[in-house]
Amino acid sequence: MSAERLDVKKNVLSANDLLAAESRQRLIGQGVFAVNLISSPGSGKTTLLERTIDMMKPDLRLAVVAGDVQTRRDAERLEQHGVPVEAIETGGGCHLDARQVARSLESLRLDAMDLLFIENVGNLVCPSSFDLGESLKVVLMSVTEGEDKPLKYPAAFRRASAFVLTKVDLLPHLEFSTEAAIGNAKSVNPELTVFSTSSFTGEGLGAWAGWLSDQVSRCKRSGAGAGT
Amino acid sequence: MSAERLDVKKNVLSANDLLAAESRQRLIGQGVFAVNLISSPGSGKTTLLERTIDMMKPDLRLAVVAGDVQTRRDAERLEQHGVPVEAIETGGGCHLDARQVARSLESLRLDAMDLLFIENVGNLVCPSSFDLGESLKVVLMSVTEGEDKPLKYPAAFRRASAFVLTKVDLLPHLEFSTEAAIGNAKSVNPELTVFSTSSFTGEGLGAWAGWLSDQVSRCKRSGAGAGT
Repeated sequence: MSAERLDVKKNVLSANDLLAAESRQRLIGQGVFAVNLISSPGSGKTTLLERTIDMMKPDLRLAVVAGDVQTRRDAERLEQHGVPVEAIETGGGCHLDARQVARSLESLRLDAMDLLFIENVGNLVCPSSFDLGESLKVVLMSVTEGEDKPLKYPAAFRRASAFVLTKVDLLPHLEFSTEAAIGNAKSVNPELTVFSTSSFTGEGLGAWAGWLSDQVSRCKRSGAGAGT
Repeated sequence: MSAERLDVKKNVLSANDLLAAESRQRLIGQGVFAVNLISSPGSGKTTLLERTIDMMKPDLRLAVVAGDVQTRRDAERLEQHGVPVEAIETGGGCHLDARQVARSLESLRLDAMDLLFIENVGNLVCPSSFDLGESLKVVLMSVTEGEDKPLKYPAAFRRASAFVLTKVDLLPHLEFSTEAAIGNAKSVNPELTVFSTSSFTGEGLGAWAGWLSDQVSRCKRSGAGAGT
């Protein structure tokens, strides 16, 4: 990469980080816990969100910012679940950035929200470099993708707080070792909290939703502390 | 995107295109047909290549350039199949570029090669923008990724000549319509040649290998024509 290109990349990233920091402050100030979901296309982000929203909606006020390269399909699916959804169509862009998310926050009522899901563009590489103002990142991977993906795409796993292994209902039909996949993920990031889930059977979704609820409670307490 | 950033992006792309054109001329001049394989992580590029190499090796001289963000795992798997393999580790880069591929070509004997597979980094977005000097692009998608991916990530499908649907052995366990997936892909690019394959059962691999052989024969004829 040329020096000029590197400089531009650095400037773009630091401008992004400033905007992300502003969004984070706004969100935390309102006691909103925000999760940035990162995975390959087809790992099951939208389906996991649909199930998660159905489980958590009775107890928490939820909203979604849904990113896609083209189409508003994910946003339309999620709207069916009765939560506010803002769609971001990147028009070819390979990741969401802080500016796009900050603009979406303008259209959402943060004072009527506990938990915001940010569904990133399907891409296991680029989104991990861009802070969006989230409280934490979660990386998803389906059991059909192979055990080695945490080693081959380490940045997303390194920067995530949780790793959701999806589609475990397919395990009987695959040559896939859950133990090896989790081992590989933990070798990249020993701090990862891991969930083995199936949006089809519901396996593991209770633990995942419970963990999210705990994070929201913690965020409320720290937000309230910050306000005093 | 700022005007300055756009300019830099344009310059990077045109420098890439010049290098790609040089590689293409070298490859065609030697009668080498080159395929750039693009898909999400975990769609089965490497496994498809392993099976394809085993099928085609008796009749054609093959080689591989294997790109990965981190690790040389794919290259090591492919080397077991007795063909020359050059690994490119992008170190975080989200796609292969023409410079990396041109450098790999220096280490390969083009005069002892009929068909070169270029396995791109697992990413359905960024690789589609970068010409590597290939004869054509092939996009892969597994049946576990969902029928809508050609609509959500259209660039890769638009620029590909063939679409390989992988892991069709899993269809009995999924809610997935092959017809809808192919319809979506064809709506983006009506010219796509489509293969429904399973590297596990071998389904569809004969048709895929046969099509590749035909492309190689055509390339040899046009290369010979160019040389007269």
